[in-house]
Parts: sequence; C-alpha cells; structure tokens
Amino acid sequence: MRNGAYITEKCGESFSTMFRVEKILHDARSVHQRITVADIRGLGRALFLDENFNVGPFMEAHYHEPMAHIPIAMLDGDRLEALIIGGGDFGVASHLLKHPSLKRLDLCELDPEVLAVCRKYFPQWAEAEKDPRARVHVGDGFDYLRQCPPDGLDVIIVDSTDPFLHGGVLISDEFYARASRSLKSGGVLMQIVADHILFREVWNDVIPAARPHFPALAPIFLPIPFYATGAWGLMLAAREPARLDPFRVSAEYLKSIPNLKTLTPELVRGWFSLPPVVERELGPLLRT
Amino acid sequence: MRNGAYITEKCGESFSTMFRVEKILHDARSVHQRITVADIRGLGRALFLDENFNVGPFMEAHYHEPMAHIPIAMLDGDRLEALIIGGGDFGVASHLLKHPSLKRLDLCELDPEVLAVCRKYFPQWAEAEKDPRARVHVGDGFDYLRQCPPDGLDVIIVDSTDPFLHGGVLISDEFYARASRSLKSGGVLMQIVADHILFREVWNDVIPAARPHFPALAPIFLPIPFYATGAWGLMLAAREPARLDPFRVSAEYLKSIPNLKTLTPELVRGWFSLPPVVERELGPLLRT
Repeated sequence: MRNGAYITEKCGESFSTMFRVEKILHDARSVHQRITVADIRGLGRALFLDENFNVGPFMEAHYHEPMAHIPIAMLDGDRLEALIIGGGDFGVASHLLKHPSLKRLDLCELDPEVLAVCRKYFPQWAEAEKDPRARVHVGDGFDYLRQCPPDGLDVIIVDSTDPFLHGGVLISDEFYARASRSLKSGGVLMQIVADHILFREVWNDVIPAARPHFPALAPIFLPIPFYATGAWGLMLAAREPARLDPFRVSAEYLKSIPNLKTLTPELVRGWFSLPPVVERELGPLLRT
Repeated sequence: MRNGAYITEKCGESFSTMFRVEKILHDARSVHQRITVADIRGLGRALFLDENFNVGPFMEAHYHEPMAHIPIAMLDGDRLEALIIGGGDFGVASHLLKHPSLKRLDLCELDPEVLAVCRKYFPQWAEAEKDPRARVHVGDGFDYLRQCPPDGLDVIIVDSTDPFLHGGVLISDEFYARASRSLKSGGVLMQIVADHILFREVWNDVIPAARPHFPALAPIFLPIPFYATGAWGLMLAAREPARLDPFRVSAEYLKSIPNLKTLTPELVRGWFSLPPVVERELGPLLRT
C-alpha cells in the first residue's frame, strides 16, 4: 500500500467502495488480519481491517452513538455492567462511558494489534481505557462469554467486523445462547448485522438463531455513512419484550449525553420502524 | 465499456463507488451526457449518466417514493397539478400518478436520449407517459419554468443529476425565484440536493439561494442506498411555512398508496428531524 493508492472494499459480488489514501500511517498484518490506518484527503483518518473500511472520526458518531446510547436507554438502574465484544478502536467504549449509570465496562478484543494501533492513532477514543470503570481483555469474545457468570450483565454490544464473515460464530445459535445466559433478565444485546439489500440473506440466519434466546428482537436500519450501501442494519435483542421501546430514547435522555451528534428521539423511532418492503420480508421471521 | 468492467463514480475527491457490470445493454453519448444501461449481477438493471449511478429497480423506491409521496402529502385538494424537472426515467412520474388527486403532470426532461433509452430499458416506469394526465416535454427545466403561468402549480419535483454539477443552475437564486412564482401559494418544491458529509458545502449555497423565495425549507436526510455515502439529502420547500408538516404523512395517507415499499409515518418524521451535528451547521442558515 502506498500513498495515493485506492483501498477497495468489496461489498458483495457487484458493488465496491474505494477510498483514496493521502498518507499511509500504518499498514501491517497481525495474526488475525491486515490493519491499515490512513489519512483520507477531505475526510481525515480512517481504520481499515483487511482493506474493509472500519471507522474514522469523520463518521464514527453515526455508528458509535446508536450502538452505545440506544441500548443504555433501554435499561433501568444506575449500576450497569456492560461488555463490548470487539470494539478494539475504543469508539463504542468512549461513548458508553459518558453514562454515569455505567459501573463497569469490560471490552474483549480478539486482536492485540488492533488495540495497539488504535491507541497510537485514535488516542481520543483510547482515553476510554484510562477510565477506572473500564477493563480491556485480549481474547475471543465467544470464549469470553462462556466464563461470564449467568445473569451478570446489563448490556452486551457486539462491535465486530461484519459478523457474517469469519465463519459467522458471532451470529450462531450458541453465541446467542451464551449471550442470553450472561445477561440479566432485563438486559439487552446490541449487534451490528448487515444492510437489507446487499446482505439481505444474513438476516435469514441471524433472526432464527437469535429468536430462541431473545424473545424480543428489533432490527434497526439507519444510515451509516460509508458502510457499503449506506443503509446499514443493527439488531437490538432483549430477554424481556417490553424492554425494547424506542420511546425510552427520549429528548430528556439524549440531553444528558455530552456532545451528542447523530441522535434525536424522532430519528430513533424511525429507525425502529421497518420500511414496508423489509417488514414484509423480515416480519414473519420476527413473529414465528 | 465492456461486459465485466467496473463503472466507477467519483463522489468527491477521495471516495468512489463501483458497480461491476455483467452486461452492457446501452452505452452511448448524447449531446448532453454519456448514457449507460447495464445489468449488475445480484442487483439487476441500472442507469448511469456520465458513469454516475442514477437509479435501478433494486433501489428506486428508496429514492422515488420520498420524492413523490412526501410532497403530495403536504397538499390539499384533489385537482393537483405537478411538474417534474428532469426525471426522464419516468420513475418519479410513475409514483406520482398513483395519486388520484393528481389532475395533470408535466415532465420536462433536457435529454431526449434519456427518454428514449428509458422507454426501452425501463418500460415499467415509462408506462407513466401513457397516463392521460401526463405530458412529456423535451427541454431545459429552467427555461420551461419561465413560461409557466404564475400561481399555477401545486408541486414541482426536481429529479436531476446532482444539482451542484453543470453550473448549479437548478440551485440558483433565479431558479428558486421562478419555481416560487410558478407555484400556488400553498404549493411545494421537492429537490434532490446532497449528503451532509461529502457535499456538506452544497447546503451553504442552496439554503441562502432558496430562502428568499421559500420561507419554509426542510432538509430531509435519509438513507438512499448506493447514493455515495448512502446518507443522502433532499429539500422540501414551501411558500407557506405551515405547509411542511411531517405528520401529514400519516398511516392513513400511506395506506392509500398501492405497493408502497419504503415509507412509514415514523421514518418520515425521523427524516424531518436533523441530527444534532447537522442542526448545528444548517440550523442558523435555515433561521436567518
């Protein structure tokens, strides 16, 4: 990889996105993946994993804020315990830790090189690990969940590379079984999944795998700039159906979050509402 | 252009999108632009103008439905007169004509080759011109507006290629003056503009140009799959401020539209709500 080159991300068989790199800051393979940090002219710094665009400060709030602040809104109480699986850029962690109601945050990242590279190139997010509530673990999140005590966590956030890659362990029946067991009865799981056009069929696997362990599932489609088609999908899951109420993301709740960039109550309510074409396809899966 | 090639769209200086072409159906230059129709594996047929992705049946509803059905919801009465500037693929027209309240639809497309190519390759949309309410004109929409009688139209929809290209005549002060004069006092203008990341500065030109002629402006950011970052922006404008009320896009209104794919009342209300980071930037322009 050299300065001036394009980094191309293949999104399905026929569509790709490309960033033109102004300056490569880091480009090396770890045991797990190729990690690239580059400056993009007009946009700024960006992280790529295996040449797939991951995140950059120029758009991170559009991804990290929904991932962090929507699940916290669904929870009661003020001694919350959270686990992030993946998230080695510390972005979701930095948003989660804005909540005084959070008592403890564990982050389990598979690749120690991601942690090291992000500490160096995204220090504004890596600040999060200095918070006394935060603990960073290196390891496989799927294994990590096995040793979590049952009914211990309030929230699990899965901030992985596309979860349908790498064998799909993070969208497997056993993963959802472990996640559900690790959560308190009122707990919630938030996970990045896929869009509803290019990777529509991923939802055909995810929903039936998760449903036996999470009676309530809410696919959340929202614009995440630069993520393939831009219309990407997250999934919020709960053991208690009443827990998933978009009206909990109230104006008052959002006002309590410093420097909020992308969320309004109306936007979040909209994202919980499936477009009719998606409702026709996913609705039957969600109700069986 | 050959089968198997990539069509690359440059979206700003550092980001591009690419479609891999399975089969070229049409590829020729008109006086105005290069027109390409191609089949994309896994997605289907797509129209490109000057190698920029324009539209395809696999995503058209995400663009055409908001463009057509949101402005109609803002109008009262049942003998509505509409003008489409551009829209030579007949997509917006085909959605507009679903409304029995529409009495007359004029479509003014600059490029007769676009009309001919779309009639051949997108016959499902070109059906629209057989509707007795529809009239197709070949010419410059900016000129066309000059000869429109004042206070005659209920709605103008500007379905152009990116309006900041080609000298920006469709986002000029004189354009908005003509559009405003051609509309009835209760009329509305809907226009595709730009996203709020890659082409953020376009809004700095559009809003001050439109404001003197349209006291009410509503930027509408929504996911339009495959449009650059995917988080694209439309603008709805009215001479009467009370006219722009997202609650007019009610469940009852949407139920009256056959085969609706992308709109729900909650989604539309969300799109009218600016993300805080966008509100901080555009809000002052909208209120001066």
